[in-house]
Amino acid sequence: MNYSSMSKEQLLEQKAKLEKEYDGFLNSGLEINMTRGKPCVEQLDLAEGMLKEISSNEDCFTSKKFDCRNYGLVDGLDDAKRLFSPIIGVPWNQIIVGGNSSLNLMYDAMARCMLYGVAGGNGPWVKQDKVKFLCPVPGYDRHFGICESLGIEMINVPLLGDGPDMDVVEELIKDEAVKGIWCVPKYSNPTGTTYSDETVKRLAAMKPASKDFRIFWDNAYAVHDLYEDKKDELIHILPECEKAGNPNLVFIFASTSKISYPGSGVSCLGASAENIEHIKSIMQMQTIGHDKMNMLRHVKFFGDAEGVKAFMKKHADVLRPKFEICIEKLEDAFSECGAATWTKPLGGYFISLDVPEGCAKETVAMAKKAGVVLTDAGATFPYHKDPKDSNIRIAPSFPPVEELAKGMDVLCVCVKLCAVNKLLENK
Amino acid sequence: MNYSSMSKEQLLEQKAKLEKEYDGFLNSGLEINMTRGKPCVEQLDLAEGMLKEISSNEDCFTSKKFDCRNYGLVDGLDDAKRLFSPIIGVPWNQIIVGGNSSLNLMYDAMARCMLYGVAGGNGPWVKQDKVKFLCPVPGYDRHFGICESLGIEMINVPLLGDGPDMDVVEELIKDEAVKGIWCVPKYSNPTGTTYSDETVKRLAAMKPASKDFRIFWDNAYAVHDLYEDKKDELIHILPECEKAGNPNLVFIFASTSKISYPGSGVSCLGASAENIEHIKSIMQMQTIGHDKMNMLRHVKFFGDAEGVKAFMKKHADVLRPKFEICIEKLEDAFSECGAATWTKPLGGYFISLDVPEGCAKETVAMAKKAGVVLTDAGATFPYHKDPKDSNIRIAPSFPPVEELAKGMDVLCVCVKLCAVNKLLENK
Repeated sequence: MNYSSMSKEQLLEQKAKLEKEYDGFLNSGLEINMTRGKPCVEQLDLAEGMLKEISSNEDCFTSKKFDCRNYGLVDGLDDAKRLFSPIIGVPWNQIIVGGNSSLNLMYDAMARCMLYGVAGGNGPWVKQDKVKFLCPVPGYDRHFGICESLGIEMINVPLLGDGPDMDVVEELIKDEAVKGIWCVPKYSNPTGTTYSDETVKRLAAMKPASKDFRIFWDNAYAVHDLYEDKKDELIHILPECEKAGNPNLVFIFASTSKISYPGSGVSCLGASAENIEHIKSIMQMQTIGHDKMNMLRHVKFFGDAEGVKAFMKKHADVLRPKFEICIEKLEDAFSECGAATWTKPLGGYFISLDVPEGCAKETVAMAKKAGVVLTDAGATFPYHKDPKDSNIRIAPSFPPVEELAKGMDVLCVCVKLCAVNKLLENK
Repeated sequence: MNYSSMSKEQLLEQKAKLEKEYDGFLNSGLEINMTRGKPCVEQLDLAEGMLKEISSNEDCFTSKKFDCRNYGLVDGLDDAKRLFSPIIGVPWNQIIVGGNSSLNLMYDAMARCMLYGVAGGNGPWVKQDKVKFLCPVPGYDRHFGICESLGIEMINVPLLGDGPDMDVVEELIKDEAVKGIWCVPKYSNPTGTTYSDETVKRLAAMKPASKDFRIFWDNAYAVHDLYEDKKDELIHILPECEKAGNPNLVFIFASTSKISYPGSGVSCLGASAENIEHIKSIMQMQTIGHDKMNMLRHVKFFGDAEGVKAFMKKHADVLRPKFEICIEKLEDAFSECGAATWTKPLGGYFISLDVPEGCAKETVAMAKKAGVVLTDAGATFPYHKDPKDSNIRIAPSFPPVEELAKGMDVLCVCVKLCAVNKLLENK
């Protein structure tokens, strides 16, 4: 029976039962971490072969006999660019290969906008009265952190089943202070949403009031499908931007953080030739170039983009059961009582759980007390403010399946108990 | 006989002789690159053992069983901090370990000053009318490039035999717009100068008008001695700053770019606890942390700072003959004619050559025509403007000794010819 149809007495009965269950968890010494999209040890072990790719002086050269140990190549190895090219849909010579963190590339890109402005733009954003950014919500906390840190005002835009609400976006970009939008276009963090072809085309064809406007396209989960036979397809945005006469509109980011190693992957930034030239002209003041030995390790190990895709099947085999146990637990817990809704992603690293309004913070706090640590409620919104206090991000990747199942049991009981309490408040 | 004592006839005779020599080089198909402080292949080969340190999943853990493959530790491995600590004279827990480039750390530090300001300072430098930086000259072109890129006005300060002219510095810092000074305190680029104890103490005890003031202390050549029995000793600046009541005055940078690999080393930033806390609070918005696998490789390979120092003797063995052949060639060429003066560094990567006023650009252009590429004349000064057009940076590390000897012959003839021509102008 759905909680919302229950009488006060029935709810009180539920409450008693749930409290007993919760109390049982309280003293069972659980320590389960579901806070971040962190690959598990089994996944990290998959790339062991990469560690053997460079073990002698002779191994340090590219196919063109370039010595990767020395200085040079501010924008990275051509071979590494070619590895990323088909994945992000950008010609290889319009790609900059970075260090171990695409977050770093994104922060730096935003800092460059602040200090220098963009190619063909109105100069440094710091010189402008106000800078605003559109943030589809729920979204990725570290994107929002970059804006908050740099004093960029964030505006929430609803993320629908096929991407950001484009009617809202098209209205907001009439404001010249709006300088860009954050997008995780495939298996979006945390909902798992993939943008539809139409949404990508509408984004690519936007005519923002500000010529500074840039789409920060964080294609973090481009090859992170869970299933062979059912996967979301995202069309490449750069060709769409070009077709629409907006080649400079987008900065595209990706990395191997969730392919090879989270701490020691390789990142990339792709864009129009004009954008890349502008960025390189500034970047060459910042560095003599990122770690080419690690780029070479990746090139040798994966070969090409097809090699990456084949390798990702191994990750899928580890992650699939984890996603499935989460969905199973959620269905078991809520299909009848209706206290929550959730997404069923076909890839990526997260499941988005929506609990009744005003219940997310309390749920997360209760779970923590029972030893299950989730991402802070609110983290999926700018300024950590979930206006409805209802969204919780589930990160299934790190704990082993049995722990995860136990963690989900705890989470589900907490959600139910908070939901029942909320309903009782109005009875 | 010294050129300056020669008659017109004697100079014309020299000119004819030198032109013949130069013409001989012109057609000998030389291709010698002496532009940058780039380690040679023989040096790169020294660190081969590092490539074997991590070759299996089991190798990926620190002494405390931390998995270096995964996310975490925004400021790097403690073990890597401990490796740098005695080298830069900063307690290990006041060190941030970065990626493969200390230049990147320095650029980012300056960009942070621009966007956020410094701990206890007057807020973002971009909000201030004017920002000026002191630049001991001749100095490192990439330091000057950072300032120029960010729109920071540079003021030349003479670099004397024991460091920057402190009388000039102490006068200039009375201007509140002056926010800092670039220093390469040991084996300075390009002169090889090491700051005296007194200079370090005076720098550490400065009372600049601006509380934003920071010394950017690029200790790039801390362990880069050429000789066992005669080496420059630099005292550590942070303890001096503390003694003088200025703990926050300095940012200290170093890297293993010229210890392990130029393209794949590890960098660090050390400072007061307050500075480090301030920097980390911003840096954690920029990245989840730099490549810990590469830090671990360094820790395993070198062990500790003593291991680094022992290893540096191997570099010295490769570099010493290169420096010696340069000095020998300079002495042979100029001890009699007096057309140039030069430094005789006991370490580092460069020799600074001063040719007669107005002759540096022409000399470098002539050498290039004969196939010997030197750092652009002017590069050792802010805005590429050597007011006397007399300084040339010699970078002996990259070419093999025989090539280097040939390159020096060409350079010396070019210097002489330019000097003779210059004297003839006034006869």
